[in-house]
Amino acid sequence: MPTPALTRPRALSGMRPTGALHLGHFHGALKNWVGLQDSHDCFFFVADWHALTTSHPDRETLTRHVYDMVTDWLAAGIDPERCTLFLQSRMPEHAELFTLLATCTPSSWLARMPSYKDQVAADPELATYGFLGYPLLQAADILLYKPAGVPVGEDQAAHVEVTREVGRRFNRLYAPEAPVFVEPQALLTETARVPGLDGQKMSKSLGNAIAMRDSPEDTAAKIRTMPTDPQRVRRTDPGDPARCPVWPLHQIYTDAATRATCDTGCRTASIGCLDCKQPLVEAIQREQAPWRERAAALDPQQVRWTLEVGTERARAVARKTLREVRGAMGLVA
Amino acid sequence: MPTPALTRPRALSGMRPTGALHLGHFHGALKNWVGLQDSHDCFFFVADWHALTTSHPDRETLTRHVYDMVTDWLAAGIDPERCTLFLQSRMPEHAELFTLLATCTPSSWLARMPSYKDQVAADPELATYGFLGYPLLQAADILLYKPAGVPVGEDQAAHVEVTREVGRRFNRLYAPEAPVFVEPQALLTETARVPGLDGQKMSKSLGNAIAMRDSPEDTAAKIRTMPTDPQRVRRTDPGDPARCPVWPLHQIYTDAATRATCDTGCRTASIGCLDCKQPLVEAIQREQAPWRERAAALDPQQVRWTLEVGTERARAVARKTLREVRGAMGLVA
Repeated sequence: MPTPALTRPRALSGMRPTGALHLGHFHGALKNWVGLQDSHDCFFFVADWHALTTSHPDRETLTRHVYDMVTDWLAAGIDPERCTLFLQSRMPEHAELFTLLATCTPSSWLARMPSYKDQVAADPELATYGFLGYPLLQAADILLYKPAGVPVGEDQAAHVEVTREVGRRFNRLYAPEAPVFVEPQALLTETARVPGLDGQKMSKSLGNAIAMRDSPEDTAAKIRTMPTDPQRVRRTDPGDPARCPVWPLHQIYTDAATRATCDTGCRTASIGCLDCKQPLVEAIQREQAPWRERAAALDPQQVRWTLEVGTERARAVARKTLREVRGAMGLVA
Repeated sequence: MPTPALTRPRALSGMRPTGALHLGHFHGALKNWVGLQDSHDCFFFVADWHALTTSHPDRETLTRHVYDMVTDWLAAGIDPERCTLFLQSRMPEHAELFTLLATCTPSSWLARMPSYKDQVAADPELATYGFLGYPLLQAADILLYKPAGVPVGEDQAAHVEVTREVGRRFNRLYAPEAPVFVEPQALLTETARVPGLDGQKMSKSLGNAIAMRDSPEDTAAKIRTMPTDPQRVRRTDPGDPARCPVWPLHQIYTDAATRATCDTGCRTASIGCLDCKQPLVEAIQREQAPWRERAAALDPQQVRWTLEVGTERARAVARKTLREVRGAMGLVA
């Protein structure tokens, strides 16, 4: 039985709207979000402003991406009765806190972020003021809700650390006696790096993804056409799972007994690659079935309402914090 | 008779709230604002967020500074029936546009501003993300209202140029067929650089200022104790107006005949320095009299209402532009 909201610590996280989610998103983040609902008062938001710092999709595409993603959240089991789901671009409060925090945050804190330096070196077009300030907007996104924890992957831990520093500096400068912000902890929950159909990290842009709501047929076809051990040319050649892109998926999806059978079968050429893939196909299809069912039962209007209601619920929290911030900074009441 | 608002071009400008204004503010900017009311639909705002990028006053001080400054605007003859006066910190719309424009504005445009480089070199504490982005927040302040002109001093002309570039780039990226922003012109109206009591530029922080609403006695005392030509030690020594800090004030305040008399009198030692100062004292007192009268007639509550009403009037304009911006960027409607 979940702890009542009032006594549960708050957790907050966001995701850029890149459209329908895939198995990599689920095992990399969303699965944790679903689990956090039991222990935390969760705020999850669509980071559509952040999406604009690195790409400029047209309106129809961005809108579809937002609703497809939120549909997948709900399909995965995010419960809008227990969580607050909202849209960043509907929250001028985030922009206002970003603007206010900017006045007391050294640029050097942002310029030294590895994510900034590496990506700008690779693509000079990214050297915008907004991309430089992306961790500060993220700090504003987080600090407004005073969460105890922020579920992130290891690659985002540095961003949570900057958020803590930004909040700490504000408290010291403007509110030394009654701190406005709490320092959130990074919730480095266990995540799985899901390989895509080509063995690289699963990614929509690489075209190697299995979507959360792919049909059983599409999922089966994608797995069945995956390359396997390149040295196992004929059915009669023995293979080595260590060289096979399908094998890491087994680690995530099948049990030890199945893996032992497949491992032996492969090394002795007693089974073919399709035999090895079949339990995997079935395991993924089993995982996907409830997602597709939940999504099919959703009225698209319901997804919109969920976001509307969540956005207003989030706004009430954000406004309260912002009043405290304005007060601490001495702005006219 | 002023042109009706609907057909008048719009002008917009802002001022940081540093408290009661002095003669330097009046002749450097405010006098032009008063004149612009006849030809333009004027929006004037209190740039209190900008004040926070360079100082951290307490709440009481900042609030007093805001109302003292707006009182001086009204005292100078700014007519709230014809102009829109508003408070930047009440406009999350400015922060939202700032955040959105950040995504498409190269950092290099901001880092190369002379105002940024020079001031950060002088005071490394200023190297904040907000201070770097100050011209971009200013661009947002301006572009939201689509003004035809921005009255500025020459030192601010580079900022208007960046505003034009930011707007142009947004239009090209997001709205090539139906531009959202207009490119404002810098209205480089004639301004006078008012010397302070010590001959340096008049500045509150240098303690060399005559406030717009100084009493006749204070004004007289300040001028009478001003240093004069250091080489005119005795009353009988002839002086040289070119070496006298009082002389530039004569250029602003007295007529040619008075100046001729003072010039000759000084060079021949036929008048003393107090004789030379007297027509100046009277001219400044004459200028100040209607300001003090208008300010005395103002109910403090009326100043607050003026800002409240103006802020809501400005918001209606800002929201309309912001809707166009969100639409052009493809954000969910």
